[in-house]
Amino acid sequence: MGKGRLEAFFDAVVAVAITIMVLELKPPHGAEPAELLGALPIFLSYILSFIYIGIYWVNHHHFYYLVHKISGGMLWANLHLLFWLSLIPFTTGWMGENHFAMWPVVVYALNLLACAIAYTIMSFVAVGVHGAGSDVAKAVGRDKKGKISLVIYLLSLPLAFINPMLSCACFVAVALIWFIPDRRIERVMGAGV
Amino acid sequence: MGKGRLEAFFDAVVAVAITIMVLELKPPHGAEPAELLGALPIFLSYILSFIYIGIYWVNHHHFYYLVHKISGGMLWANLHLLFWLSLIPFTTGWMGENHFAMWPVVVYALNLLACAIAYTIMSFVAVGVHGAGSDVAKAVGRDKKGKISLVIYLLSLPLAFINPMLSCACFVAVALIWFIPDRRIERVMGAGV
Amino acid sequence: MGKGRLEAFFDAVVAVAITIMVLELKPPHGAEPAELLGALPIFLSYILSFIYIGIYWVNHHHFYYLVHKISGGMLWANLHLLFWLSLIPFTTGWMGENHFAMWPVVVYALNLLACAIAYTIMSFVAVGVHGAGSDVAKAVGRDKKGKISLVIYLLSLPLAFINPMLSCACFVAVALIWFIPDRRIERVMGAGV
Amino acid sequence: MGKGRLEAFFDAVVAVAITIMVLELKPPHGAEPAELLGALPIFLSYILSFIYIGIYWVNHHHFYYLVHKISGGMLWANLHLLFWLSLIPFTTGWMGENHFAMWPVVVYALNLLACAIAYTIMSFVAVGVHGAGSDVAKAVGRDKKGKISLVIYLLSLPLAFINPMLSCACFVAVALIWFIPDRRIERVMGAGV
Repeated sequence: MGKGRLEAFFDAVVAVAITIMVLELKPPHGAEPAELLGALPIFLSYILSFIYIGIYWVNHHHFYYLVHKISGGMLWANLHLLFWLSLIPFTTGWMGENHFAMWPVVVYALNLLACAIAYTIMSFVAVGVHGAGSDVAKAVGRDKKGKISLVIYLLSLPLAFINPMLSCACFVAVALIWFIPDRRIERVMGAGV
Repeated sequence: MGKGRLEAFFDAVVAVAITIMVLELKPPHGAEPAELLGALPIFLSYILSFIYIGIYWVNHHHFYYLVHKISGGMLWANLHLLFWLSLIPFTTGWMGENHFAMWPVVVYALNLLACAIAYTIMSFVAVGVHGAGSDVAKAVGRDKKGKISLVIYLLSLPLAFINPMLSCACFVAVALIWFIPDRRIERVMGAGV
Repeated sequence: MGKGRLEAFFDAVVAVAITIMVLELKPPHGAEPAELLGALPIFLSYILSFIYIGIYWVNHHHFYYLVHKISGGMLWANLHLLFWLSLIPFTTGWMGENHFAMWPVVVYALNLLACAIAYTIMSFVAVGVHGAGSDVAKAVGRDKKGKISLVIYLLSLPLAFINPMLSCACFVAVALIWFIPDRRIERVMGAGV
Repeated sequence: MGKGRLEAFFDAVVAVAITIMVLELKPPHGAEPAELLGALPIFLSYILSFIYIGIYWVNHHHFYYLVHKISGGMLWANLHLLFWLSLIPFTTGWMGENHFAMWPVVVYALNLLACAIAYTIMSFVAVGVHGAGSDVAKAVGRDKKGKISLVIYLLSLPLAFINPMLSCACFVAVALIWFIPDRRIERVMGAGV
């Protein structure tokens, strides 16, 4: 019951964040295609962030399928994750408006890194509540993707000072890694998700 | 359970999208009726998009009544549909602000086409999960409306270059087709929705 | 099940509408109390609309406690109600920004009237689905408040041309009528809501 | 059942309020870190309000775990609380934009005070519905934190006229008091939240 309410609140904040990002996409004043093309960098940054927030939602969905106890600490760990996710529309807007310039890309990378760390904390808090032998612990223990992502985010930071496009390549790489759903969790869950 | 969370997230994004569209409707600064009439094209585009998003919500409601299994692929197919739906406030705003000019109408038509394709993909992924003999497969197999809509959307694209109002007539036609609830799905569902 | 999803979607749209109204309340640029006072008419219109939307939510909550069947027509009747409710932030903003001038007050009154008519339609559609002897039909049949409200809204329209403050007095009067929860519905529901 | 709908609506409004606050964080136009630093006061006020709204959500979550009856009065007491919570993005924006100047800090303190009073009213209404011997009444009776918070808020008001930073210290102090989850409620709930 507490789990349902936590999931619903998480989903509501994520739904609002993913949708208000589109408010950064201001309709251009003229009616020519050229004016729309001017919004292209903002549009590309919107797609990237939409996919990232989508990945967090899908992973949260899979992870909480295994969760069956909620503590006060887990509520706060989720709020902490939501805090960093709620900043994505801001950092996305800054990056898109400045056509993927160096500093906005660095800040965007830091935001993604903070989200990844917050997700890791959230999953460790859940392991603490469920115990070392639980399905939750097994799912986190096998989490190679999470570790690889953290390394790539850290790599994207110095790369931005060489060329911000290299950082963006890192962002796309991490998105691709996560895009493919985690077969192992799905196997534990069976077909009955 | 997974189904409930998918439905709730879908509804939350749709609810936000349908409501933030009204933010494009900026209250005019003067207090005269003439100033309100200046907002009329934006208001008309708002009504059109409200009905379209409403149609997707009603159809999703009917379709997921039949769904009883959720896979990772279905989560992503729904996120893909939500991506295109979340762009509707943007393309609606561009079209309304430019009084239904040619290019904004073309972009709006492309957005509706993308939504329709995304919905089709979503329903085929669900058929893949439920199998050929399932209620889901039967509902999709009979889906004449979906095919007719796709044809009308494709037709609306060249028509915009003749007169954007012809494209708008197409949009209204598709809305009318879908407005009438699909009696066949309702029959499968019985009165117990 | 279908009922839960309809309620959740209704609540999500209402929650977004009630909260984005606050976006009309732009923080003043100076830090003096006088600048905050300049936002007072917008603030008063915000309070009024918050209470009105709250009344619709509470009434919907009570009414759907009695509902146990959902039809396609009921989905559309709810979307129709949500359409007029979603316009309230717009008409509220226009009325507040123009310090309760005549035309904005007329438009606001029309918006409230449209909401009331849409709610009436929605309840009659529900009665059609549940039958004349149902609890739903009994609750609607006794609905004196709804009829009185419609009369007061109609009265508020010509009064705006004499003095818009008279219309505002009508709005406050209707709010007070509804503010007091409908004891009869609560009695049918018992303590177990 | 009514409880679930009340919780979901509360969560939806809170989720929207917590997320639209980020819209006050306008992406700066330049791409230099200095421009981002200019947004620092707004960012700090955002963090503070995020934590405050988070505290209300966590406390509401814990409190409604014990609630098992809903009355019309409880619906209105929750709407009253949501009204003051929905103003937080506005008062936060005013305070951040004016770099924690005196009057905006006073208004922010009044907003927090109003939220605290509204929460107290809401909990007393719930006690009235559940009776003096109920778990709800026991949880409220032991509520030392609530009383201490009210005193600190009242203290923060005159302090703002000496130095607004002293008021901000009060805000941080109250946040810290609440940040630690109420062990007693958790004990009543056991591990099964």
